[in-house]
Amino acid sequence: MSTPDERRTAALQALAQQTIELPSWAFGNAGTRFKVFTTQGVPRDPFEKVSDAAQVHRVTGAAPRVSLHVPWDLVDDFGKLAAHAADEGVTLGTINSNLFQEDEYKLGSLTNADPAVRRRAVGHHLRCLDVMREVGSTDLKIWLPDGTNYPGQDDLRGRQDRLAESLQEIYAALDPDMRIVLEYKFFEPYFYAMDIPDWGTSLVHCLALGERAMVVLDTGHHAPGTNIEFIVAQLLRVGRLGAFDFNSRFYADDDLMVGAADPFQLFRIMHEIVRGDALRPDSGVNFMLDQCHNVEEKIPGQIRSVMNVQEATAKALLVDRDALAEAQLAGDVLAANGVLMDAYSTDVRPLLAESRESRGLPADPYRAFMASGYLEQVRAERVGGTQAGWGA
Amino acid sequence: MSTPDERRTAALQALAQQTIELPSWAFGNAGTRFKVFTTQGVPRDPFEKVSDAAQVHRVTGAAPRVSLHVPWDLVDDFGKLAAHAADEGVTLGTINSNLFQEDEYKLGSLTNADPAVRRRAVGHHLRCLDVMREVGSTDLKIWLPDGTNYPGQDDLRGRQDRLAESLQEIYAALDPDMRIVLEYKFFEPYFYAMDIPDWGTSLVHCLALGERAMVVLDTGHHAPGTNIEFIVAQLLRVGRLGAFDFNSRFYADDDLMVGAADPFQLFRIMHEIVRGDALRPDSGVNFMLDQCHNVEEKIPGQIRSVMNVQEATAKALLVDRDALAEAQLAGDVLAANGVLMDAYSTDVRPLLAESRESRGLPADPYRAFMASGYLEQVRAERVGGTQAGWGA
Amino acid sequence: MSTPDERRTAALQALAQQTIELPSWAFGNAGTRFKVFTTQGVPRDPFEKVSDAAQVHRVTGAAPRVSLHVPWDLVDDFGKLAAHAADEGVTLGTINSNLFQEDEYKLGSLTNADPAVRRRAVGHHLRCLDVMREVGSTDLKIWLPDGTNYPGQDDLRGRQDRLAESLQEIYAALDPDMRIVLEYKFFEPYFYAMDIPDWGTSLVHCLALGERAMVVLDTGHHAPGTNIEFIVAQLLRVGRLGAFDFNSRFYADDDLMVGAADPFQLFRIMHEIVRGDALRPDSGVNFMLDQCHNVEEKIPGQIRSVMNVQEATAKALLVDRDALAEAQLAGDVLAANGVLMDAYSTDVRPLLAESRESRGLPADPYRAFMASGYLEQVRAERVGGTQAGWGA
Amino acid sequence: MSTPDERRTAALQALAQQTIELPSWAFGNAGTRFKVFTTQGVPRDPFEKVSDAAQVHRVTGAAPRVSLHVPWDLVDDFGKLAAHAADEGVTLGTINSNLFQEDEYKLGSLTNADPAVRRRAVGHHLRCLDVMREVGSTDLKIWLPDGTNYPGQDDLRGRQDRLAESLQEIYAALDPDMRIVLEYKFFEPYFYAMDIPDWGTSLVHCLALGERAMVVLDTGHHAPGTNIEFIVAQLLRVGRLGAFDFNSRFYADDDLMVGAADPFQLFRIMHEIVRGDALRPDSGVNFMLDQCHNVEEKIPGQIRSVMNVQEATAKALLVDRDALAEAQLAGDVLAANGVLMDAYSTDVRPLLAESRESRGLPADPYRAFMASGYLEQVRAERVGGTQAGWGA
Repeated sequence: MSTPDERRTAALQALAQQTIELPSWAFGNAGTRFKVFTTQGVPRDPFEKVSDAAQVHRVTGAAPRVSLHVPWDLVDDFGKLAAHAADEGVTLGTINSNLFQEDEYKLGSLTNADPAVRRRAVGHHLRCLDVMREVGSTDLKIWLPDGTNYPGQDDLRGRQDRLAESLQEIYAALDPDMRIVLEYKFFEPYFYAMDIPDWGTSLVHCLALGERAMVVLDTGHHAPGTNIEFIVAQLLRVGRLGAFDFNSRFYADDDLMVGAADPFQLFRIMHEIVRGDALRPDSGVNFMLDQCHNVEEKIPGQIRSVMNVQEATAKALLVDRDALAEAQLAGDVLAANGVLMDAYSTDVRPLLAESRESRGLPADPYRAFMASGYLEQVRAERVGGTQAGWGA
Repeated sequence: MSTPDERRTAALQALAQQTIELPSWAFGNAGTRFKVFTTQGVPRDPFEKVSDAAQVHRVTGAAPRVSLHVPWDLVDDFGKLAAHAADEGVTLGTINSNLFQEDEYKLGSLTNADPAVRRRAVGHHLRCLDVMREVGSTDLKIWLPDGTNYPGQDDLRGRQDRLAESLQEIYAALDPDMRIVLEYKFFEPYFYAMDIPDWGTSLVHCLALGERAMVVLDTGHHAPGTNIEFIVAQLLRVGRLGAFDFNSRFYADDDLMVGAADPFQLFRIMHEIVRGDALRPDSGVNFMLDQCHNVEEKIPGQIRSVMNVQEATAKALLVDRDALAEAQLAGDVLAANGVLMDAYSTDVRPLLAESRESRGLPADPYRAFMASGYLEQVRAERVGGTQAGWGA
Repeated sequence: MSTPDERRTAALQALAQQTIELPSWAFGNAGTRFKVFTTQGVPRDPFEKVSDAAQVHRVTGAAPRVSLHVPWDLVDDFGKLAAHAADEGVTLGTINSNLFQEDEYKLGSLTNADPAVRRRAVGHHLRCLDVMREVGSTDLKIWLPDGTNYPGQDDLRGRQDRLAESLQEIYAALDPDMRIVLEYKFFEPYFYAMDIPDWGTSLVHCLALGERAMVVLDTGHHAPGTNIEFIVAQLLRVGRLGAFDFNSRFYADDDLMVGAADPFQLFRIMHEIVRGDALRPDSGVNFMLDQCHNVEEKIPGQIRSVMNVQEATAKALLVDRDALAEAQLAGDVLAANGVLMDAYSTDVRPLLAESRESRGLPADPYRAFMASGYLEQVRAERVGGTQAGWGA
Repeated sequence: MSTPDERRTAALQALAQQTIELPSWAFGNAGTRFKVFTTQGVPRDPFEKVSDAAQVHRVTGAAPRVSLHVPWDLVDDFGKLAAHAADEGVTLGTINSNLFQEDEYKLGSLTNADPAVRRRAVGHHLRCLDVMREVGSTDLKIWLPDGTNYPGQDDLRGRQDRLAESLQEIYAALDPDMRIVLEYKFFEPYFYAMDIPDWGTSLVHCLALGERAMVVLDTGHHAPGTNIEFIVAQLLRVGRLGAFDFNSRFYADDDLMVGAADPFQLFRIMHEIVRGDALRPDSGVNFMLDQCHNVEEKIPGQIRSVMNVQEATAKALLVDRDALAEAQLAGDVLAANGVLMDAYSTDVRPLLAESRESRGLPADPYRAFMASGYLEQVRAERVGGTQAGWGA
């Protein structure tokens, strides 16, 4: 049986190793179909995005990788971008393919009824693999935005067959150390049927592809009421959880800051991660943010998000798992629930402050960043040019 | 007790009088936050939008009014636009204010914490009233996109108080023959709390304003599972249903063609309309479309939508209301449900074809339009310029 | 390219072969947690349930099998029950195990933390297999009602492992001609986490078991907004759709008559069935009803339900699939949707009347039954005894 | 500007005055439509229920009232029951009418198409008023379970008119110091349309009745995604929030322990209560529990629930409202959200322990009760008789 002190010590160790990958696009402008509001100081190119992401790592020590989007983050010389990242203290991570902005993809990309369109969509991924080779990335993340808006618009089952073929071509082109992480989404940008709407569909395709195809769980991509931690537990159990896209939601795919809408859910997710021993850096699960800061400042929003994940993780690490197992085996519902809630009710901010300070980091990363003058600086410097946003 | 023939005759009469108002913005490009796909032949100004809308009326005889958006449809000379509409055989209808595209409205317009922003948002409505006077419109439609994304971001209750004040200023400026129709929406573009999220909130504000404030029901603006026909019945009962925004949805505010996702629901809505005697042209209920044709052709999409509303209406008119009342009073659940389903199962396309032909209209408006050559013509003519879309 | 007449002829052929299995429990009383209302004439034992079910077959010619529930339908002599069924013109079908009414299952049956409870739950299924041997049934249907109400109450992942073990023991005891059909359910009777909440989880277990384990899709067991026909298409594609539990819902697992809440959805489901060539009697897909007639008469409710499935099927069979494929390949969204809607808008009641009359059945089964005097007879005869209901 | 110490002191004062009303039925057996599991030691009559409820007050000091259900809690001599309550240190509170268990209410009670049924349903409330006079209660709580399962089953609007009439008759019979609190519910026990499905409908009827009719908000009675704290704020704003039924849910009306599913939501609700100054004992808002302890022990479940409400309240009381208002006015989204989250992240268990101990109560009421031997005692004593449950 572990003591509170032992759990505390183990938590400090685990927290020191936890890393969270940041999406380059979170630093650009984002919005809804109604309006993308602009923000002063927003980056105008991938270099500035990487610089902003590095600020998050600088104050949290927990966000050492930046995920890129192709073609949004295409540069002439990826070696130069990687070197810039290294200068800023971070590395380039997962490569995300973009399948939702070409006019020819209106009716589908990897699932399109037209083989020529599918061929170009596959080709886009081969280009992504080249970028991965250039920047040393091993994860190709595919979020398939394909779907239909009207019953009858296309053949649901035929689209699955085409998707399987397209994915097979991409999978065949992977280097041995590369993997595909395949995301599902309940709805949007199509409203009748998405072609990968749920974890079951993503898993079916991953199983058909092979061992280097894993499922990506975006916490905002489920039907109302879906128990997400159950899916986490199941995917860990079958060895196919590849990555998270963290964010939070009240209604649809709101892409709010993770932990902002339902911090208790985030805690339960992290509890399954700890229970499944998947927090380890070498677990094969990549913890990423995928958010849109429509109304709030972007860098501070990312910092707050990293802190929210850390708080949920810390609470999950403090769960008295022996007492929990004992109450569960005894069928004592209230006691078992109580053990979990005890950890959740704990204020872990002091523990995290201690963890940070022991590593030479500011106790309060948000406050440290706000006091750093960086925002004021980029607002002054980044004048002219075109602000990055979705599509740029 | 009515006979089937009598119901048929009455249905033909009612169908001949039914009108549906078209939104000018449905003829421009629309999309999701991910992408607005372009379409050949899309209008580039309000005059071309009105021309396109007039095509729908030309083949259906049921869409004689076009609803405008301010500022999207601002022109130098509204008299000229009204004359153009008259030339095309239609009139200008409801004026919609736009509160979601100014940078200063990021945190709210009529509810903004800053009184100067609220003042400008009120001022925008006074300008809308001027447009109404110029074009002879009597309905000011306010969809309030205001809301917050994060708990604590603003004071929920304070925003209601500010909203009440702002609306009062607008209401006070109405001419005696004008009214406000006030729309509610469950979520989007904000994700934590919309300031008018439900019919209850809209009604509370309408009651505070006075008799010329009515609720707008957009069929896509409800929580999953909401019984919309109940709301229709309730608003008719309390005398506060001012207008519909028709569209259909599978998930969120999908803005698909009305009747495309759940035609049985549309029938049930029209059944309550018929039951409440609100189909009459002078009932005070304005039946409007509010849709986005992201992947389908726009004019044909509007024609199909008008036809869908007509089919649902025809079925509702064919309900044997005497038999229904008898079964309801007898508590015969299956018989009562069966009476309703009998009407719904009827193929009313022949009846509608007859109705149209008796008035010199094509039996199949969709087919007639597709054969008219109009699409080919505008694709050829409308080259250059900027296509209309949300925001233009 | 098929002609309308050819489609009509093919539809008549397919409709003549379609069968729907009836649940014995639909003829007993049912209700909500608040109240089970009683109904005159309700069966008091499995023999009377079979007699009632046979009435549905008598007038529809489409419901030749009755599904039994163990232990609700346990009798001393199953040979006698099978003979009674034969006398009434029907056969006994799927056997359903009941895992939700023993006090010891409060915290789980096949997933219970206590191995002794799991052993008894497995033993219950071995008993079901014996019943299957006695009545000549080949399908063991397992709906697992296990789950938890509170976070932490039990170990989500551990429960999956126990479930896999329990299912393996049952599967190993199947005769070579038997199969397991495994149902999933989103929520209820537990509210935090069901142990088989979705098709993905059911499929994961079926894949682990072997080829004679198939997924059951209950149309009421999904999250709001779930595209059910997509799941149908996917399960057919991977060869694992074993059976339907048909019913309809507005909110949760309402268990209303199939086709009553969203007849268009039922049509889309049957369209995927026809498209996947799974309507054939030997397709391996068993079409069952699973409903609760809380407020309506039970036998008539079942008849109406069978008719609703037939109407949806007839419409699906009338889809001009050549025209549909052509429009889909051309990317003509409105035309493709229009082909589907043309079939849906058709009034197929005359076609079904013709189909029935050609086989010596009443054109309107509901009316024929209501005129038969059967209800009046059983109301008079079935006096005394205990009415069947859930749990009896 | 308040200091942390001042907020702490004010919180201690407010917490000492907060009271929560307990439902008598929470101490009996409860379950789902599938099964009501039995529990040792469950009360067999209203006297034993009151005794159990008093245990909750004994250890929390915060639950001094017990709400009764008519007819479940009918006794020959209410004076004796009131005296028993007084002996146990509690009083009798709100009277709840039961409209869902008479066979004649199958198709409705206050809304039934049959005037004789409506008359008896009204009469039931007159009887409840008599009980209120006998026990000194001033609140008549009406949860209307009426509704329909099938479209067409009854006339939606006609039912509203009948409801208005029935309520008027009851309202007219109130004593001057009495009020009606009128509850709404999204769905269940009926699935097509509830007759009071939302707060808007409840408010419409309350406004028609008069000033002594108030809305009851049951936290489990909303559509997925509904922002409940918004409704709290709106009802407080229009002066019509009469009472809460607290519980929590993941999916439908799960009736789990309040705070168990989404403790952050409960905090946000209590934040609106504090903001609206409605926590005061004389605010007119009655805070009640309404829960079903299907799998957990009942008295401990109630204790945990009271503690959960207290924790959410304590956090809400600690919000730095000056800083919040400042950040809100400044439009600093992250700062404003951060002020709220700071309060939520606080571990308030020590503050509550201090509050309790200062009043001579156990620091941990749950632990104190479990150590009291009461459960063991009633398990031994309450042998024989019929356990209370829904319907008894």
